[in-house]
Amino acid sequence: MSSQNPLILITNDDGITAPGIRALVNAMKVLGDVVVVAPDKPQSGMGHAITINSTLRLHEVKQDGLTEYACSGTPVDCVKIAIDKILPRKPDLLVSGINHGANSSINVIYSGTMSAAVEGAIEAIPSIGFSLCNYSIEADFAAAAHFAAIVAKNVLDHGLPAGVCLNVNIPDVPLDIIKGVKVCRQAKALWHEEFDERKDPYGRKYYWLTGKFINLDEGTDTDQWALENNFVSVVPTQFDLTAHNAIKDMKKWEM
Amino acid sequence: MSSQNPLILITNDDGITAPGIRALVNAMKVLGDVVVVAPDKPQSGMGHAITINSTLRLHEVKQDGLTEYACSGTPVDCVKIAIDKILPRKPDLLVSGINHGANSSINVIYSGTMSAAVEGAIEAIPSIGFSLCNYSIEADFAAAAHFAAIVAKNVLDHGLPAGVCLNVNIPDVPLDIIKGVKVCRQAKALWHEEFDERKDPYGRKYYWLTGKFINLDEGTDTDQWALENNFVSVVPTQFDLTAHNAIKDMKKWEM
Repeated sequence: MSSQNPLILITNDDGITAPGIRALVNAMKVLGDVVVVAPDKPQSGMGHAITINSTLRLHEVKQDGLTEYACSGTPVDCVKIAIDKILPRKPDLLVSGINHGANSSINVIYSGTMSAAVEGAIEAIPSIGFSLCNYSIEADFAAAAHFAAIVAKNVLDHGLPAGVCLNVNIPDVPLDIIKGVKVCRQAKALWHEEFDERKDPYGRKYYWLTGKFINLDEGTDTDQWALENNFVSVVPTQFDLTAHNAIKDMKKWEM
Repeated sequence: MSSQNPLILITNDDGITAPGIRALVNAMKVLGDVVVVAPDKPQSGMGHAITINSTLRLHEVKQDGLTEYACSGTPVDCVKIAIDKILPRKPDLLVSGINHGANSSINVIYSGTMSAAVEGAIEAIPSIGFSLCNYSIEADFAAAAHFAAIVAKNVLDHGLPAGVCLNVNIPDVPLDIIKGVKVCRQAKALWHEEFDERKDPYGRKYYWLTGKFINLDEGTDTDQWALENNFVSVVPTQFDLTAHNAIKDMKKWEM
């Protein structure tokens, strides 16, 4: 590796063989020296989980002309082990994705893709999570890869504020339909649970988690609004969860 | 159940048999009708993970004079399945814990205990995560249970702002040494990874995630400061991860 090129760590939550991460690897190769450390199997919905009750494995994989690393853990494990055991120095950029499926609004909190980016921010690495609003394995990542390169270039040029990473979602439409990029806030939304109750062949109940996405936000400055109107959404995202505005009132409680 | 009593959902991440949740159940019984839905095994470090690639089981367990529910999933799964499949109505309060070990500062983001409380806040349930700064199975939960009752009573009386739950940590000292309760902010801190590399009996490498906690924050208004000075720390915690202050500057980028 040439030492003056930016060093770019790439991970995801759909696993190292997913089409989304392959598209991201190709988009990032133009910008710097890439190192891929990604889960060896799908890890969607893992949030900020880390592996503390069992062990981790790392396997080298040769693909796309690179030596990559498949890790048996979660996306956040991948970031941690990359920093401690694989990378020659702190990377200049961490990119995660391109996720198969949206991580806008409340989905940021369940997303392994975004949790990897948040972990990067905790480690003071400029970090971005990319997601395409299409869950399918056959999704077309061309537009998403195009915007991933643009946003990544901007982050390499401008840096990011301390404690902040980016949550970038790309609408599932062709490049010429996308109207541009909007910096926005996370929409207020939630999932309404609808567990699918079934019986196994032995008559015992089991459940599949399913749900309905409910957008509670009518603002036009949100990521949901941007995506519904064919803009790429970029939400600056932080790991300081303190509700600073609530502190003053709560100090009046008698505890 | 008497319908005028507050309905209190109790969960945790150490599992339904952990001493910490048993202490919390006993503390909450005085305040209302409790329903326990908790993981059937330890789920520490699961963050906001949900189970989407496999199925969930629920088992009834009789203990402490209650019918409780052991769930095969994560703490967040427990909250979701409780709401959809177990509770007769939306609960008046969700409490999670008492965790065996601190969830102050950056630990909030890895914690299954706190993620359950955050999930409650997403569902508009007043929610609190409690953690004792002692990882041991033999920890003394007396002081923690005492303050859990006080904080829970305050939340039942005052409610919480929309989108906010509480992260409550209790120092590991006897009740008479605790100086009081401080409402504070999440300290800036991180874990410095130190993976423990070993070889299995077949000569293949594997890794244990370990690390060193690094407090980067010298503020006296943080949860770390409070705990180090024998105060109970209460951090109002939100799931809007938007770094609102960063939006204005980023709008100047050319994307």
